[in-house]
Amino acid sequence: MSAVPTSVGRAATRGSYAWKKTLPTLKPRSNAAPTTMQGIDPSHNQPMGSWSNEQIGASVKENVMLTWAPSKMKNNLPIITHGEGVYLWDSNGKKYLDWTSQAVCTNGGHTVSENIKSAVAEQLDRTPFVYGGMAMCEVRARLSNIISSVLPEGLTGCAFPSSGSEANEAAITMARRYTGKTKIINWYRSYHGGTTNSLEATGDFRRWYIQPPPGFVKAHNPNPYFFEFAGATEEEKTEMSLLMLEEQILYEGADHVACIMLESIPGAAGVLTLPEGYMQGVRALCDKYGILLHLDEVMVGFGRTGNMWGFQHYDGVVPDIVTSAKGLSSSITPISMVAVSDKMMEFFEENPMGWGSTFQAHPVAMAAAYANIKEMLSNDVIGHVQEMAPIFEAHMKECASSHPSIKQYRAAGLFGALDIVSPDGTQPHHFNAPRTEATAAYAKAFNEVGLIGLFRPPVIHIAPPLIINEAEIKEGFEKQHQALDVLDKALGY
Amino acid sequence: MSAVPTSVGRAATRGSYAWKKTLPTLKPRSNAAPTTMQGIDPSHNQPMGSWSNEQIGASVKENVMLTWAPSKMKNNLPIITHGEGVYLWDSNGKKYLDWTSQAVCTNGGHTVSENIKSAVAEQLDRTPFVYGGMAMCEVRARLSNIISSVLPEGLTGCAFPSSGSEANEAAITMARRYTGKTKIINWYRSYHGGTTNSLEATGDFRRWYIQPPPGFVKAHNPNPYFFEFAGATEEEKTEMSLLMLEEQILYEGADHVACIMLESIPGAAGVLTLPEGYMQGVRALCDKYGILLHLDEVMVGFGRTGNMWGFQHYDGVVPDIVTSAKGLSSSITPISMVAVSDKMMEFFEENPMGWGSTFQAHPVAMAAAYANIKEMLSNDVIGHVQEMAPIFEAHMKECASSHPSIKQYRAAGLFGALDIVSPDGTQPHHFNAPRTEATAAYAKAFNEVGLIGLFRPPVIHIAPPLIINEAEIKEGFEKQHQALDVLDKALGY
Ligand SMILES: Cc1ncc(COP(=O)(O)O)c(C=O)c1O
Ligand SMILES: Cc1ncc(COP(=O)(O)O)c(C=O)c1O
Repeated sequence: MSAVPTSVGRAATRGSYAWKKTLPTLKPRSNAAPTTMQGIDPSHNQPMGSWSNEQIGASVKENVMLTWAPSKMKNNLPIITHGEGVYLWDSNGKKYLDWTSQAVCTNGGHTVSENIKSAVAEQLDRTPFVYGGMAMCEVRARLSNIISSVLPEGLTGCAFPSSGSEANEAAITMARRYTGKTKIINWYRSYHGGTTNSLEATGDFRRWYIQPPPGFVKAHNPNPYFFEFAGATEEEKTEMSLLMLEEQILYEGADHVACIMLESIPGAAGVLTLPEGYMQGVRALCDKYGILLHLDEVMVGFGRTGNMWGFQHYDGVVPDIVTSAKGLSSSITPISMVAVSDKMMEFFEENPMGWGSTFQAHPVAMAAAYANIKEMLSNDVIGHVQEMAPIFEAHMKECASSHPSIKQYRAAGLFGALDIVSPDGTQPHHFNAPRTEATAAYAKAFNEVGLIGLFRPPVIHIAPPLIINEAEIKEGFEKQHQALDVLDKALGY
Repeated sequence: MSAVPTSVGRAATRGSYAWKKTLPTLKPRSNAAPTTMQGIDPSHNQPMGSWSNEQIGASVKENVMLTWAPSKMKNNLPIITHGEGVYLWDSNGKKYLDWTSQAVCTNGGHTVSENIKSAVAEQLDRTPFVYGGMAMCEVRARLSNIISSVLPEGLTGCAFPSSGSEANEAAITMARRYTGKTKIINWYRSYHGGTTNSLEATGDFRRWYIQPPPGFVKAHNPNPYFFEFAGATEEEKTEMSLLMLEEQILYEGADHVACIMLESIPGAAGVLTLPEGYMQGVRALCDKYGILLHLDEVMVGFGRTGNMWGFQHYDGVVPDIVTSAKGLSSSITPISMVAVSDKMMEFFEENPMGWGSTFQAHPVAMAAAYANIKEMLSNDVIGHVQEMAPIFEAHMKECASSHPSIKQYRAAGLFGALDIVSPDGTQPHHFNAPRTEATAAYAKAFNEVGLIGLFRPPVIHIAPPLIINEAEIKEGFEKQHQALDVLDKALGY
């Protein structure tokens, strides 16, 4: 008879199995830093505007980081000291015409009206900030109301994040939560913002709103990238693109597709105006398959293309979700918007939106936006854009016809793009490739002639502030021609 | 001899295989809307401050959406008309002491100094907006410099997004791009922001920066959730938590872990002050395994806990990445920050950060932040918080000892949390559960006694503006006791 085998248990004491685990030790570093002005460079006490170019340059070199570009490029950027109307001046006294409204966003130009300034000042006096989930304030009620007034009927509910990205975050999460589906179809050659991680990093209940993780399906835009696919005529492009899109819906599974999310007119990708009938077809596909239509108007909303909204170019089309930013405040404060249909709004009366942020519905940002919108409406800025549009387009056409380096142009309102082309008919520069000699020469000339703006070859964007007048448009294109002369030569024409 | 079998080919003409596919047709809807003040309700011409409660209420009901809460709750929120110091007033004339600085963010209270107001006004005059990738401006050089001055040595490079979420987006992407690794370890019971999708939705090259998709691994925070796990003493908690964390690093694979990303002191989760030695151990693990340490100071940065930075409570610990927001501008403008070590900055001199946004480095937002930081330093706000801290803590202790519904308190500087507990020792309310009768009764009493603030049961946050004085602290806690009396009763004590 053997003993009860407790010995195994007895042998396996903590002492015999465990080995001594030592945690690594810290190589300590001082983490002290000043908490008062003592220890801060006294030049910070000098009034703003008084730092020399050298002082600014030194701080920029030492402490400033860029985002989409390698940071060292910061050392070559002009130091802008002031602006007026469509013009900006740098610290060497050089004057620039703002040829892309910065990032297609300073729609009202660089002079802030007394009205808007006092709206900001008053809000700073009244109450600069209340948290939108805890308290209401008059400016929020007013801005929500006026935004819903300038949207087509049925688009009623609004929220006001701080960036276009955040507006799209809210929109995407709402589309998923409202439909109970996860996939979103959107285009190659689109830009919807730079955010993707913070909620995944979060370890509280708010992360549940975005589970399961992203399922974005990319569809083709109906415009030919190498100027060749998707049919020859507008009609063919529309038909072919819609058939491809319908195949994607069917094979992604209509029951899994929450939303089709498109830029009303893709902006960063190069003002890709859509073929006749395309967006109507997308709307019809959405209706057929029970899919929401989200139109991203971050860049084109608020008059850029000669209508209040880009989608108003498409007769009969009303989206379920609209996001915008930039032109909302003319970018004088960081603010964006998301608006949804009355049906969606009803759902979110009972359910959390699933997105949020500290600074959404920021009173000062909203006060600036509200004053800006009223000014836009009072001054009939959209009427002005419509008046300028044919003049602008004539100049665009002239660029395309008089410069061999320009393959073609597209224009809508005061938003235009020129496609550059090599003598052998190929694209001389792919998106996000490093500057070539030719594109670098052009970029240099562009600034030298007195223009400032975005340059994303193979596209040249032209998008001046919406308040630009005929003489200023003429001046800008004269400079544009000079810069294009340099490009023609540099590309070997 | 058989014929060449071309007949199959010949039979398969387009005519015989294809069937007529009809695209669905649009049910058109009008998408017209006003583009001038004609068609806009004339009440928008009335001066701000003049809308009646009914007018505001109607617009709120019709057009306003909330975010983390079901929107219908908007109809019960107070309409805040003005503020002064630590107080806010609603449209019925009721006065509230701001007991959590809104979302722990209005650190400077509700009166904006003349200095800060004129900084904003001047920047609006000078140049309200330049795109940060296209141009520099003096305020950006100055703010970057002063922020790096108040950070420990070696943290040099700064960027300024518009929200805490966006700062974390930038940080996460930089950590991945710098290390070439993808996983990020962070805590349950953390909040790092609400963004997760916009870049995945994007269809241009900027999406490549975040490929492959998120790999966030959640680790346990060393604080007991149900007041019980992770050891009894501080030392045991630290040791056990670090051993668990090291096991995670080893089994996630140190070669795959880019970063450990933690709130220096978890805020929303309930001011989870860390056991002695824990953060030093995390830093040592990071060094041992070649992992970056990112400390999220969105809520605690800029003095909330009595130091400039929360991590300055941990002797010898310097993170590689710091993000902050809220207190940076005292929330009067939407702005956040990310700062990285000199080594990381060097890398990003040559490489794009991989995150970006239109409104990063927003001049007006930066002008407000810059003036706010200088005011904080000039007025020695941190010294003031340190002076108030023992008084604040004594009151916190008194709450925990005199109310049976309060299990325990935690406090650091002017940041405190009370944990509520049921008579049977369990948690009376889980995070994000709907209000119970007891917690609803407390929330109501809290407002009635004249406090306004966040309430996220089972935690009661207390975080008044940092400028609060001793008498106001006393006043706040007197009101807090009244509200806790209601809670004691409601929970059945
Ligand atoms: C169409 C579109 N959507 C979204 C965004 C992102 O906006 P933000 O840069 O404000 O985050 C942009 C920015 O250019 C955009 O053009
Ligand atoms: C620690 C922490 N990180 C990030 C965030 C997100 O910041 P935001 O709401 O500005 O996007 C918060 C917000 O409360 C926070 O507390």
